[in-house]
Amino acid sequence: MKPEMSYEAYRSKLSKIADLGFAGAVLSWDQQVFMPKLGAKARGRQMATLSTLGHELFTGADFGGLLDSLVNDPALTEAQRINVKLTRKDFERKKKLPDAFVEKMALITAEAFGAWVEARRQKDFSLFRPLLEQIVALKREETRLLGFNAHPYEALLEDYEPGLTVAKIDEVFGRVREELFPLIQKILSRPRPDHSFLAKHYPKGKQWAFSEKMIRQMGYDFDSGRADDAPHPFCTTFGPGDVRITLRSDEHELAMMLFAAIHEAGHGLYELGLPLEEHYGMPLGSALSLAFHESQSRFWENNIARSFSYWKANYRTLQAEFPENLGSVSLESFYRGINRIEPSFVRVEADELTYHAHIYIRYLIEKALIEGSIEVADVPRVWNDRYEEFLGIRPSHDSEGCLQDIHWAYGSFGYFPTYSFGSFYAAQLAAAMKRQIPGYDDLTSSGNFAPLLQWLRSQVHSKGREFTSEELLIRCTGKGLDVGDFMDYARTKYGSIYGL
Amino acid sequence: MKPEMSYEAYRSKLSKIADLGFAGAVLSWDQQVFMPKLGAKARGRQMATLSTLGHELFTGADFGGLLDSLVNDPALTEAQRINVKLTRKDFERKKKLPDAFVEKMALITAEAFGAWVEARRQKDFSLFRPLLEQIVALKREETRLLGFNAHPYEALLEDYEPGLTVAKIDEVFGRVREELFPLIQKILSRPRPDHSFLAKHYPKGKQWAFSEKMIRQMGYDFDSGRADDAPHPFCTTFGPGDVRITLRSDEHELAMMLFAAIHEAGHGLYELGLPLEEHYGMPLGSALSLAFHESQSRFWENNIARSFSYWKANYRTLQAEFPENLGSVSLESFYRGINRIEPSFVRVEADELTYHAHIYIRYLIEKALIEGSIEVADVPRVWNDRYEEFLGIRPSHDSEGCLQDIHWAYGSFGYFPTYSFGSFYAAQLAAAMKRQIPGYDDLTSSGNFAPLLQWLRSQVHSKGREFTSEELLIRCTGKGLDVGDFMDYARTKYGSIYGL
Repeated sequence: MKPEMSYEAYRSKLSKIADLGFAGAVLSWDQQVFMPKLGAKARGRQMATLSTLGHELFTGADFGGLLDSLVNDPALTEAQRINVKLTRKDFERKKKLPDAFVEKMALITAEAFGAWVEARRQKDFSLFRPLLEQIVALKREETRLLGFNAHPYEALLEDYEPGLTVAKIDEVFGRVREELFPLIQKILSRPRPDHSFLAKHYPKGKQWAFSEKMIRQMGYDFDSGRADDAPHPFCTTFGPGDVRITLRSDEHELAMMLFAAIHEAGHGLYELGLPLEEHYGMPLGSALSLAFHESQSRFWENNIARSFSYWKANYRTLQAEFPENLGSVSLESFYRGINRIEPSFVRVEADELTYHAHIYIRYLIEKALIEGSIEVADVPRVWNDRYEEFLGIRPSHDSEGCLQDIHWAYGSFGYFPTYSFGSFYAAQLAAAMKRQIPGYDDLTSSGNFAPLLQWLRSQVHSKGREFTSEELLIRCTGKGLDVGDFMDYARTKYGSIYGL
Repeated sequence: MKPEMSYEAYRSKLSKIADLGFAGAVLSWDQQVFMPKLGAKARGRQMATLSTLGHELFTGADFGGLLDSLVNDPALTEAQRINVKLTRKDFERKKKLPDAFVEKMALITAEAFGAWVEARRQKDFSLFRPLLEQIVALKREETRLLGFNAHPYEALLEDYEPGLTVAKIDEVFGRVREELFPLIQKILSRPRPDHSFLAKHYPKGKQWAFSEKMIRQMGYDFDSGRADDAPHPFCTTFGPGDVRITLRSDEHELAMMLFAAIHEAGHGLYELGLPLEEHYGMPLGSALSLAFHESQSRFWENNIARSFSYWKANYRTLQAEFPENLGSVSLESFYRGINRIEPSFVRVEADELTYHAHIYIRYLIEKALIEGSIEVADVPRVWNDRYEEFLGIRPSHDSEGCLQDIHWAYGSFGYFPTYSFGSFYAAQLAAAMKRQIPGYDDLTSSGNFAPLLQWLRSQVHSKGREFTSEELLIRCTGKGLDVGDFMDYARTKYGSIYGL
């Protein structure tokens, strides 16, 4: 086989696997957005088939041989070499999971989705527990199949932030406990800014009209995207020109849809900025990691859209949309209101500081589940105890407690830490952008985000998986992960808001 | 291998293939209903991959051996034997198409969809022509690959109405030309009933509220279905509990959404009545033919919802929804208005009599394209000439002419005749139901359709592909296809409306 022929065989194979993956994404999106109730059972099987077929195609013995022959092929271009090298790494990892294991996981998580929805509706963890037990048993088996160094949880982290270790997470959250949690306590000792105006009646249609303006201003467009209602906001990619977001809304909670839209559009801009057309289904066309993905959404949601500059650009438009609610609320009051810090039960509604307590709790629980130091039956109690310990509040039922997130129903263990790491990366990227982009603050306060997006595109999005997170951070910001940037951001911003 | 083991292998294989097929249906539905513009290119490839993988799974050599070993297996139940026998027939047919051919067809039709949309928008056939030429060339090749007896077109008909011949279609349309076309001429010589009230302003939301009531009354429900807007109304199945319809509407055309909803819900009820859960992906869980499918939609749309009895049950509700438009329109006038016969350009808006001229024209053109007696470049001219010949009108541009239907872009040649055959089957089924179901007219005029649906479920839906169309017609109605029932229906109904 000629080298270019075999790279073509490689490319064509990954393209087919990507087709199956994106098809699965369409089915999953539809399941959460439009599917009628009785469609659930067959849909689960169908998604399982797509994921099983994709896995079979990827891990087939002939593919290993092809990768082996390609990996040292001098005729490949540099980009091709990187694709093959990273794919071979993925292959080594994925072939450790037998087809039967993958199919079992797909079937159980498909079933678990329905059980989780029902359990959440009925506020009753016991309805979800038997399935979660099966999932945890499978995840424990998965850590044995995949292998690990220091801690079994690391085998699972690899799917979301390659190379991340339990030691590193513990170190980072150690600093969160030492510096962020005391800062939160200090903030909570101060009078809380008024935010009652956010809970006035904001008709959904007008909320969406404003949210749409805001995400268009960021650069998200509807020729290659759309937004739909779903119980849980997410962003999903179906191909190079089709990256969609979902939103939820509350007519008495202005912040919910708006910041979810900006957050998900941040994910969407990353996906749309990947060279996916050129490297369809290949590592260079794929997002680096979930934590880096989250850095993109958090950057727009927090570093931009919760900044004073941002509202200098946009508050007048918002006021004009809702004069009866906001006409007498000053820009400063609004800014303080959307940055009110307050312990709460629901992660996706948390402010940007207490948010990390939510993540830390989930991390502690899933690490304990995977290492076997607690069992699924313990989850509601441990969850509630931890909320009391770190946030001083105790959920009154499981739907505002351990049933609030879909991740475990999907079998996603190791995912949560990426939310915090994403915020920390975002703060570090924002600090670098401020240094590197002339007039960063003026751009923000005039709603001109094109240069910021351009920076992200060239520094982050266009790189795909070329570098590790640590490498990419060094390239973009001059240093590896440094939580100090986030802490500086938090101290400066909230010091000023709360007069600390 | 034990017999039950090998039937299980057969079942499991067809289940996977069905999963791929239903996933493809979700992608196709989304493409027509929600997909953003720039998603088209990748979506086409993805759908092609799903259909190619399905074809490869189905036609794999090992499957032929399995079917051979099963087909004479005495341990199979009667239902299992029928499934295997029919699958073997499908296999013999499908394996005649090489994987590369199937993939090429899938890719070209995917591309053709976009070209057709654009050509239609610009009213310019030349934008679609190059792709249609490729499709026709492939369809001609397909007839050679599949083989045929009397006419190459019959090789394609087999996909839509197995066993149907050109001779049979010519015989049936011969009668249409001899009896129906003169009836239409007689009708057109009479004063036309007023239908101007149908073109008043009917807000979309209220149209949908009424349409929804009507399809719920038929037995369609939203736990296993939904309705969305699309440029072209259709019904699509994603699994046993998920059968969806799409609709289009015009606020100045009451009939459009309403009758499309009833028509598509008729298809939906057939799909929901199939034993798909039990025979998932297998012949006994599948619709008999497109013509029989169409008999179900036409039955509800025309034989029921355009009958006087139906509006005795429902007209008051409609009037109450739109008192300003219909308050002064009597039941009789309304009935006459919705049954006005009038030549028109667009098939999907045609009345139930001139409709068959639309089909006959498409049949003549696609038969001529397949046999090579005309070329794609001739289509607009031949189309327009035929409209003048049979309907006395000439399209002023291609979008109200040969670009109006999506079928050819999908490579569906041989599909159109099933629309007329469906109507003829429907008339024959309706005549049988009137004889067999006590109080048929009273049930209709009280909106109690459960016994009618029950009859269809037990006589037609539950049978899957157990019988041929001709066999099933004999079982249900005591005779094979007899266009006389449709002609009697047409003469009686329109004789009375037009005083002939």
